[in-house]
Amino acid sequence: MALADILGAHRNEAGIATAIAVLQQRFGDKLKTSQALREQHAHTTTYLTPQLPDAVLFATHEADVREAVRICATHKVPVIAYGTGTSLEGNVNAPEGGLCIDLMGMNAILEVNAGDLDVTVQPGVTREQLNAHLRDMGLFFPIDPGANASLGGMAATRASGTNAVRYGTMRDNVISLKAVLPDGRLIKTGGRARKSSAGYDLTRLIVGSEGTLGIITELTLRLQGIPEAMSAAIASFPDIGAACEATIAAMQSGIPMARIELLDAQCVEAINNYSKTSFQVSPLLLLEFHGSKASVGEQAESFGEIAKDCGGTGFEWVAKPEERNRLWKARHDAYWALRAAAPDKQSLSTDACVPISRLAECVTQTARDIAEAGLYGPILGHVGDGNFHAAVTFDPADPEELARAEGVVERLALRALAMEGTCTGEHGIGQGKRRFLRLEHGDGADVMAAIKKAIDPDNIMNPGKVMALS
Amino acid sequence: MALADILGAHRNEAGIATAIAVLQQRFGDKLKTSQALREQHAHTTTYLTPQLPDAVLFATHEADVREAVRICATHKVPVIAYGTGTSLEGNVNAPEGGLCIDLMGMNAILEVNAGDLDVTVQPGVTREQLNAHLRDMGLFFPIDPGANASLGGMAATRASGTNAVRYGTMRDNVISLKAVLPDGRLIKTGGRARKSSAGYDLTRLIVGSEGTLGIITELTLRLQGIPEAMSAAIASFPDIGAACEATIAAMQSGIPMARIELLDAQCVEAINNYSKTSFQVSPLLLLEFHGSKASVGEQAESFGEIAKDCGGTGFEWVAKPEERNRLWKARHDAYWALRAAAPDKQSLSTDACVPISRLAECVTQTARDIAEAGLYGPILGHVGDGNFHAAVTFDPADPEELARAEGVVERLALRALAMEGTCTGEHGIGQGKRRFLRLEHGDGADVMAAIKKAIDPDNIMNPGKVMALS
Repeated sequence: MALADILGAHRNEAGIATAIAVLQQRFGDKLKTSQALREQHAHTTTYLTPQLPDAVLFATHEADVREAVRICATHKVPVIAYGTGTSLEGNVNAPEGGLCIDLMGMNAILEVNAGDLDVTVQPGVTREQLNAHLRDMGLFFPIDPGANASLGGMAATRASGTNAVRYGTMRDNVISLKAVLPDGRLIKTGGRARKSSAGYDLTRLIVGSEGTLGIITELTLRLQGIPEAMSAAIASFPDIGAACEATIAAMQSGIPMARIELLDAQCVEAINNYSKTSFQVSPLLLLEFHGSKASVGEQAESFGEIAKDCGGTGFEWVAKPEERNRLWKARHDAYWALRAAAPDKQSLSTDACVPISRLAECVTQTARDIAEAGLYGPILGHVGDGNFHAAVTFDPADPEELARAEGVVERLALRALAMEGTCTGEHGIGQGKRRFLRLEHGDGADVMAAIKKAIDPDNIMNPGKVMALS
Repeated sequence: MALADILGAHRNEAGIATAIAVLQQRFGDKLKTSQALREQHAHTTTYLTPQLPDAVLFATHEADVREAVRICATHKVPVIAYGTGTSLEGNVNAPEGGLCIDLMGMNAILEVNAGDLDVTVQPGVTREQLNAHLRDMGLFFPIDPGANASLGGMAATRASGTNAVRYGTMRDNVISLKAVLPDGRLIKTGGRARKSSAGYDLTRLIVGSEGTLGIITELTLRLQGIPEAMSAAIASFPDIGAACEATIAAMQSGIPMARIELLDAQCVEAINNYSKTSFQVSPLLLLEFHGSKASVGEQAESFGEIAKDCGGTGFEWVAKPEERNRLWKARHDAYWALRAAAPDKQSLSTDACVPISRLAECVTQTARDIAEAGLYGPILGHVGDGNFHAAVTFDPADPEELARAEGVVERLALRALAMEGTCTGEHGIGQGKRRFLRLEHGDGADVMAAIKKAIDPDNIMNPGKVMALS
């Protein structure tokens, strides 16, 4: 974090005071300035220091967002969009103070178009809320980050999850959106057509911009029909390399896997301890297949043969829901199992992503690096995308251990970049990874800065995130 | 077209003269100024008037592009990237003159990563060249616009084709790219990771920007494994509505169709006349399925049931290559059949795209409008995407008939927008559809202009395309 951020050197005290007075006048009770609410809205799920906004607006209408942004623009006061607060890189911190706009009151599912397989929602709708709403229509929205995040936040972070290997990420599943620009104007980046060649792709520009270009107030998302059948499979492998080899072979063979998740031996061990399971303590692949009744069996069997060819053992596949859940229990319990394995520790959640052919090497080197740093850091990941998480644990009371953990994360980012990958596959840059942006993008970072300046010349939209501007 | 474009009012004569002298000095024989080559490079496949560049550079290296752009930037001279010249909206015209950079000499396939299902190519590689290269590796690149276009041009236009319903468009299949910016700097928008949340999505910003932000000099593309098996199917329908209804039901049911193409009755009639086939003269759906041997049969059968439920007749499905080609002959011959049906005419190729639920209505209204305009205009389309083409024919020697054809295209664009669609699904804005950009994007058009200005302040990159700036 830049020193100026820590010291709050960029705080526009006069502007903030005036803006809050105007906002209070305009919004009354919708605007909160209590310490507790400000703290809650600077909550980060990482080690990054919370940085509080000066006020929180509980927006319930698009017009609230537009008016609040206009007021903040007039006084050059930062505006930070807030959903469920589950981002991992300090994305909702307020290093220069300003106004946090909580969008969770804007949680209406506006229109489901079953024939077009799309839905239009407000940004505060969570993925679980959406899927509960869709279930009876035989539809679902596939993107599933760990948290029950808001769809606006997921779009802003370009989030993904376990289904991305089949269904893509938020990049691929946002058809269009509405966003309030830094001057309060509202844009709509497209209609409901599944494709368009009409001008610059503003949808994809806003998706992943982490609230630094505008605030998303509406999203049209692509849906999927709930498959007729699903099957699940597991196989253990002698080492990470063999598991990755099986993944590559399965991808090449065109098996349309819906999920393929890797757990390393440490992870499996933690799960066995936590869930009283007895999975073989070696790298484990968990898979899910979607399709017709006949095809989900065929897909699983095809994978079974590949797994065997790659030295896999303990292959098993099932189709009944309760059986599927039994196999996937290892994955579902992973988060809690890892917490239980190091109860007094915090963890740095990383999300490097590399070409799959480099994944085994990247995971193996990272595991070695974690061990050499004297830390506990099980690895699990969305192996079909080449994306993995190392939960690098550290004692929050021990700055030296935190420094070692940060060293691991830093070396992992550099390793991923050296392997033609990315420092972040799905968590975003936020504050935590700003130092890697130029390493990853070179002069492209200048293009991003030029775009930011063109759209948000006063840098009021989530300042201090993605790139370091002042 | 704006009057200033026609009159060449923005021509920077002094700058152009100086830049060409410098370019000649630097590039010698690689730079051509003959009338014939200039005319060839202003070739448009539409009715739009050719507008010649002042010189054509046959680039063979990235360094050529960088240096030429730098020279043009110094003298504020337009630069137009050129591939196969098969774009349809005047995208390669030079309304202000300047330098055309022909990239077809940069046609190396640089690296195939079979394990990662990706390939890195230079922009002059055509899609057929790439697929010929990949065939023996069991891989293919799915995007197939009608022409054997260059991959650089396809990316710049955000092109798609018949496979998009299954494999997406260029938006989804460009993993990253290199582009020369208007000041000659080179950016690389990413590595080879299948996903990333690191900063603004510059890949998707350049894809579809039609050479107005930079010149693509390298592309990393996503590949697919050649499926184990393919099957094809056809079915006739009593009307467009029934064909669309079957399409929607098939999409909802999750059948992973690789292709689903609609031909209207006029189209089928033209094909019967041209190819001596005897398809029922009513709306026809042609499908292709990719997968395992068992699944392509199952997919076809599932579709057959849906077709029957929707009033379809003459359903047939086959798997052998020669049989598949027999069924698909109608689609393969469509271009030539339509030309033969109106041999003395030219046609305006449109590409509106609407939500599928609105497709029947949009196609039916458009067909009626064409008939009411007294024109011949068969309709065919990528119905799984809601995207269709009307080949609105007119006598090139009759300005009044051209005006009527333009009227049809204009009303179609407005109709598509009113149905939450887009004025262009895959051809781009170019010059021909600039007047619809603001209608489609509202204030988003200003955001595009702001981005253009931030990246290309002197407006040297393909000026007069996508948006009207001067």
